Amino acid sequence: MRPEKTALTWNEPVTVYRQYVSYGETDAMGVVYYANYAHFFERARGQLIRERGMSYAEVERRGVILPVRELKCRYFAPARYDDAIAVRCAVGLWGRASMTFIYEVRCEAPGEPGGPAGNKLLCAGETQHACVGPDYRPKAVPDWLRELFATA
Amino acid sequence: MRPEKTALTWNEPVTVYRQYVSYGETDAMGVVYYANYAHFFERARGQLIRERGMSYAEVERRGVILPVRELKCRYFAPARYDDAIAVRCAVGLWGRASMTFIYEVRCEAPGEPGGPAGNKLLCAGETQHACVGPDYRPKAVPDWLRELFATA
Amino acid sequence: MRPEKTALTWNEPVTVYRQYVSYGETDAMGVVYYANYAHFFERARGQLIRERGMSYAEVERRGVILPVRELKCRYFAPARYDDAIAVRCAVGLWGRASMTFIYEVRCEAPGEPGGPAGNKLLCAGETQHACVGPDYRPKAVPDWLRELFATA
Amino acid sequence: MRPEKTALTWNEPVTVYRQYVSYGETDAMGVVYYANYAHFFERARGQLIRERGMSYAEVERRGVILPVRELKCRYFAPARYDDAIAVRCAVGLWGRASMTFIYEVRCEAPGEPGGPAGNKLLCAGETQHACVGPDYRPKAVPDWLRELFATA
Repeated sequence: MRPEKTALTWNEPVTVYRQYVSYGETDAMGVVYYANYAHFFERARGQLIRERGMSYAEVERRGVILPVRELKCRYFAPARYDDAIAVRCAVGLWGRASMTFIYEVRCEAPGEPGGPAGNKLLCAGETQHACVGPDYRPKAVPDWLRELFATA
Repeated sequence: MRPEKTALTWNEPVTVYRQYVSYGETDAMGVVYYANYAHFFERARGQLIRERGMSYAEVERRGVILPVRELKCRYFAPARYDDAIAVRCAVGLWGRASMTFIYEVRCEAPGEPGGPAGNKLLCAGETQHACVGPDYRPKAVPDWLRELFATA
Repeated sequence: MRPEKTALTWNEPVTVYRQYVSYGETDAMGVVYYANYAHFFERARGQLIRERGMSYAEVERRGVILPVRELKCRYFAPARYDDAIAVRCAVGLWGRASMTFIYEVRCEAPGEPGGPAGNKLLCAGETQHACVGPDYRPKAVPDWLRELFATA
Repeated sequence: MRPEKTALTWNEPVTVYRQYVSYGETDAMGVVYYANYAHFFERARGQLIRERGMSYAEVERRGVILPVRELKCRYFAPARYDDAIAVRCAVGLWGRASMTFIYEVRCEAPGEPGGPAGNKLLCAGETQHACVGPDYRPKAVPDWLRELFATA
């Protein structure tokens, strides 16, 4: 039984980060190298925070650091050069001194004829972040951070 | 005397590729790692080709490969996390069997208070590309490629 | 109940891949960026195959492609610039048409005074790989691949 | 006339940094992505400093920061997955408040049959570094840094 797992939900607000796949993100198999999805995830969660009117840099200046404690990625289909990808991201779970972001990467338009069809799921993932202070000791998620993501 | 150098010009069309600096692009000095500017350059030239109605992937399918023969980068000021950067890119020079792209990276809006002022020049660079066939032997730049960049 | 999980074991042979942390692998938090552990994992499993007398490139030439289907990473402590890290890697599980590598990253010697103590566990992870043919359809793990990892 | 260019010399000490090309360093063209050579350069100059008994991290702790001011790379031949590469690196020039490292990347053993022959030159480059203090203002290269590289 893993209740923490089933508790992950697409809470509002949800952001959609978009970019084209660059050559530098592909590998000799002709597809996006698996580690680069973690970069996509980070850009999406950075955008989610930015869209709430703050920057992750500002979060750190306020004394809250959110190092990644766990990363999970499942890969369903490969992305290729110039594919237009979209990364959905939301906070999937709030812990007392942690938070978990969830992600879905889809191909919106293939860069090449015969590429993945529109809206094809490429990858799903999650990142669990510890909430720590500048001294890297666990710290309860402050109210202002939780409220940053509150939707009326 | 370096005539090949002075010949680099901002020919139309010019593209402007924009993105925010991600955490994964910074280093322990707190600034964008120097190698990542070469990624920015590539995304900008990919966008330039895309805006002309083609993909670099399509260029390759037509039998023209453009491996980088030379890279030059001058760094003027550092970029930090969440800075909104803009990369101008154009074809600076056409050779018989080569082409050179030129780049300027600027900070349009700092991600943090006290960051680089708007429109500050961060980096300037160029990439010279050989024009080769699928056999990697030199090949004259085909007319259709040169015309792709022609502006009425 | 997750039997596939408990079945992961450090089967012989085990390899230990070593490197120093480079500046380009760190981020603005001053530590190794989380996505780079997936690169470390890949270098370790490439070394494991190489030490068995083959290259992953040769595996592909023989018609067996091993795309990553799932990545899991748990982060315990950060690595810093110039830390001497060691990545243990082994095949943790053979499936009918898949295989799972397991990893542990440790710091053997800190690059800086006050860095992580010798042999400190930084990260543990696993990558599950599908076994597919050149047509990307599932394929039973061939005997020669399984035997490559057999120890008398 | 480019006197600063001709002044670059392979002063002792010279280091040779070695590694295998990983999958994550290649791109869809099947070769090492051009930006990754800048990572190779950095690992080589980090090793050069380490072999002199210091770490670049220690250099910074002593108040000397060496941000890259200019990067030049010429690419002669591609490297592929699992190629054993070697990067020679030395201080090519000392300025009053700057220093320039020079690099040569060679393939010592191809990862695949038909790969680049032993000792083939793949890439040559240089990085010019400003010498600045913690306030990022120019600073004369301190004697202890210059002497670090002195050979009897």
